[in-house]
Amino acid sequence: MSDPAVLGRIRIVLCEPSHPGNIGAAARAIKTMGFDRLTLVKPRQFPHADADARASGAVDLLRTATVAADLDAALAGTRFACALSARRRDLTPQPVDVRAAASEIVQHAQSADVAIVFGPERVGLSVADVSRCHRLVRIPTNPDYSSLNLAAAVQIVAYEVRRACIDDAAVEPQGTEINPASHEEVERLIVHLEETMIASGFLDPARPGRLIQRMRRMFARATPEAEEVAILRGFLRAYRETPRHDP
Amino acid sequence: MSDPAVLGRIRIVLCEPSHPGNIGAAARAIKTMGFDRLTLVKPRQFPHADADARASGAVDLLRTATVAADLDAALAGTRFACALSARRRDLTPQPVDVRAAASEIVQHAQSADVAIVFGPERVGLSVADVSRCHRLVRIPTNPDYSSLNLAAAVQIVAYEVRRACIDDAAVEPQGTEINPASHEEVERLIVHLEETMIASGFLDPARPGRLIQRMRRMFARATPEAEEVAILRGFLRAYRETPRHDP
Repeated sequence: MSDPAVLGRIRIVLCEPSHPGNIGAAARAIKTMGFDRLTLVKPRQFPHADADARASGAVDLLRTATVAADLDAALAGTRFACALSARRRDLTPQPVDVRAAASEIVQHAQSADVAIVFGPERVGLSVADVSRCHRLVRIPTNPDYSSLNLAAAVQIVAYEVRRACIDDAAVEPQGTEINPASHEEVERLIVHLEETMIASGFLDPARPGRLIQRMRRMFARATPEAEEVAILRGFLRAYRETPRHDP
Repeated sequence: MSDPAVLGRIRIVLCEPSHPGNIGAAARAIKTMGFDRLTLVKPRQFPHADADARASGAVDLLRTATVAADLDAALAGTRFACALSARRRDLTPQPVDVRAAASEIVQHAQSADVAIVFGPERVGLSVADVSRCHRLVRIPTNPDYSSLNLAAAVQIVAYEVRRACIDDAAVEPQGTEINPASHEEVERLIVHLEETMIASGFLDPARPGRLIQRMRRMFARATPEAEEVAILRGFLRAYRETPRHDP
């Protein structure tokens, strides 16, 4: 349900990444979320074997990555850009939560090129770089330890943008459906269970308490499938039909 | 706004991780989201220098990590468990989207220990392991390339659970609380049911098929309460022990 045309208009920009392994991991992260455009601003080492290794099945994104001399070159042609930074800085764009930003990104990408910009591992984006962007995006983290790995931050943002894309398109159909038994089938199971509980001496029909009530409540939560009801009823029948071998 | 008490009740379980680097990256991922409990089931190499290196400022979580001999040991004491798996399998718990699962996880962790279970890098969780969990959690990915790195999957789930925690802080608690039985209590019920099915002649141990698998799946959906487990086990005892009065 995701729209490849929209995701294809969003470039992921890594500014001066130090570790080639992170470049590879970021490529893998964005490919799993349906993106295919990676831009690297002055990477310290690229291409590199560590990048290829960590990219796994996303080495194609490394081969087609754009290497730019500075952030302006990386942003050329874009109409909207978001900067990721954990740091709070003066005179930078207004900080917005990543989920709200994802929505804006998808909206802009309907009709224009968009960039999501990540800074170097240790120091983060400079004020000059953040100032080139329209939004400063925040990922909510542990206040006592907010040190997200670069590729991990890329993963979260890419995930949120993919979701914004999907959620806007429609609701994704759920995976496996369960095929619940009919109301009557479940009723017959409960009656059968009650009869067998009585026959076994476990339930005293003169003093039933809330035992069957509790079983009803549990089966209501379980929403059993027809086949599960059939198994349980087969087991209950076996109680009455199997000859007992008393010691 | 996040409640550390809630996040402290959630253990992140990595089953048989092959690469120590991924263990370290997972530790960092969860610490950035405010978690501090890491459990490792049969890690191939641990402790390991690569784990420490990738953990960065989260080495403390590696030092306090629990190493378990199998998934049952890792789940001991939990009342709700979610399995992460990209694979679609028959007879596993109903798949739910990670965002919905995060909400459920936070709700259960208000009052009980909860586990989030991740499988080995290449092969993912076995059916037996997934069957021990209440939910099969899906992360929406690119259908053409869904190969999330282990630590990246951990990062997304931890992020969603942290958000659910923050976002739920304002929301009122749900209506009727259920008080789920522990993992061990439900396991003993399933074993008891299987034994009784065999004793009654209903289940042929030589040809068990997927019958118990189906019962697991149903009980996972039901999240039975301790008292419901006690009722069912009382009934199973009566089923075997009470002499039959055949007509």
